[in-house]
Amino acid sequence: MLLIAERINGMFIDVKQAIADKNKKVIQDLAKRQTDAGATYLDVNVGTAAADQQAAMQWLVETIQETCSTPLCLDSQKIDVIAAGLKVANTEPGILLNSSPLNKKNDEEILDKYIELAKNAGPKSAIIALTMDKNGVPQDIDTRVAIAAEIISKAVELGFDTQRLFIDPIILPVKVPNAQIQPTNILAAMDQITILAEPAPHITIGLSNVSQGTTQRSLINSTFLAMAVSHGLDSAIADVFDERLMNILATAEMLMNKQIYSDSFLKVYSSINK
Amino acid sequence: MLLIAERINGMFIDVKQAIADKNKKVIQDLAKRQTDAGATYLDVNVGTAAADQQAAMQWLVETIQETCSTPLCLDSQKIDVIAAGLKVANTEPGILLNSSPLNKKNDEEILDKYIELAKNAGPKSAIIALTMDKNGVPQDIDTRVAIAAEIISKAVELGFDTQRLFIDPIILPVKVPNAQIQPTNILAAMDQITILAEPAPHITIGLSNVSQGTTQRSLINSTFLAMAVSHGLDSAIADVFDERLMNILATAEMLMNKQIYSDSFLKVYSSINK
Repeated sequence: MLLIAERINGMFIDVKQAIADKNKKVIQDLAKRQTDAGATYLDVNVGTAAADQQAAMQWLVETIQETCSTPLCLDSQKIDVIAAGLKVANTEPGILLNSSPLNKKNDEEILDKYIELAKNAGPKSAIIALTMDKNGVPQDIDTRVAIAAEIISKAVELGFDTQRLFIDPIILPVKVPNAQIQPTNILAAMDQITILAEPAPHITIGLSNVSQGTTQRSLINSTFLAMAVSHGLDSAIADVFDERLMNILATAEMLMNKQIYSDSFLKVYSSINK
Repeated sequence: MLLIAERINGMFIDVKQAIADKNKKVIQDLAKRQTDAGATYLDVNVGTAAADQQAAMQWLVETIQETCSTPLCLDSQKIDVIAAGLKVANTEPGILLNSSPLNKKNDEEILDKYIELAKNAGPKSAIIALTMDKNGVPQDIDTRVAIAAEIISKAVELGFDTQRLFIDPIILPVKVPNAQIQPTNILAAMDQITILAEPAPHITIGLSNVSQGTTQRSLINSTFLAMAVSHGLDSAIADVFDERLMNILATAEMLMNKQIYSDSFLKVYSSINK
């Protein structure tokens, strides 16, 4: 499981404040602790509050890199913010560019630009593409799968290996009832997306979104993660500090035969991910 | 989820001893507590130690029925033991006959007999059929699915509604490595079995078997249950006293849209199942 640790995000008050104050300690502490907890990538998202988002992205990237070499996941729907981050990012250990829709309201071919940036960022770079297009987030599953197919076509057309593609079918909060986009339908979409290309693209989700606003965030996140792993999910933007989540993930991967059972499988899993 | 509570089984030392001593209190306490914990059925299995298994089955059934009216699941691979239990069982609230292979080593058509007994036990009776035949438990998934198809054919042939059929694809312990019969393959078998008939048969498993001999029984059982629910599992023989398991189950069913989300969904779930 490629785990993208979610905490360095300007939507969290401590991170927002740290960006405003240029308080390196808060950011570096999160970077180190998330790395220790098993993060494959550290998501870096300036949020919407920063006055100069490009400068904020560069400051975050440089601040994190002073303290650890965990691959980064530059996260913005503004391509200029991603590009600014890339200028100072060490892409040697790998880098993820997160997250691109297929295209934008004005028909601008934004996915092409993310792919172009990724290609220039070296062989270990990859992108996260959302199954949304100029019409926004589709209100049904079939359209999402169709957009996933278009994303894959576009990657192939541009000579970008589908294994460097992370497709995000966009999970919505269970608290917002939507008959078309229930978690069960997202699982069905995963089943379909995994067979759209050979080799299959990665599938990722913003896991914490499913439990947004609920009273049982960890339980809902963990249970959905176990289900999703059995439907081909191999990556998630998640709270790596959640011990229940990490234990269920280790167990799910063992059950899916990605790790052999041993009496100490939980410890083995966490040490592999460090 | 149709939960078959597993504890009244002569394999457990306290139950074995209670059968030997005719100690009603132990059995009745388990019956009541499992009912309170959310059991749909109470499994009743005399184990292999009882000198007279038919008499032991009848004593268990009568003992349980003195204290609660929860439907029973008579569990034996000896048809005479099932028949003995049926003679004294109240089948009015429903009854499950557990568990029949397709046929026996000597080619005896045992499934026919379970179905015949169920038919005579009234409209709320059902049977659990294991995907095994005269050759024992198949060492691969395809044969299990093929046996499931034969079980369904047999039921249809005998005019037994497929909705009264619980098919058990037989989960093996993760601690016993078997490349062909990994949990992930059992999930694939579930995907296939659910589409073998319309309306689909129930799918059940002896859940605790997956974690047999491991150091993390609850975690492994719970994680596999979440996965299996997302692949069509709608019944399990399980430890209803395991709080983690029951919380993950409630969450899995909510995520599968079998229960609407509310902030108190865990409480609502447990009250519905009482």
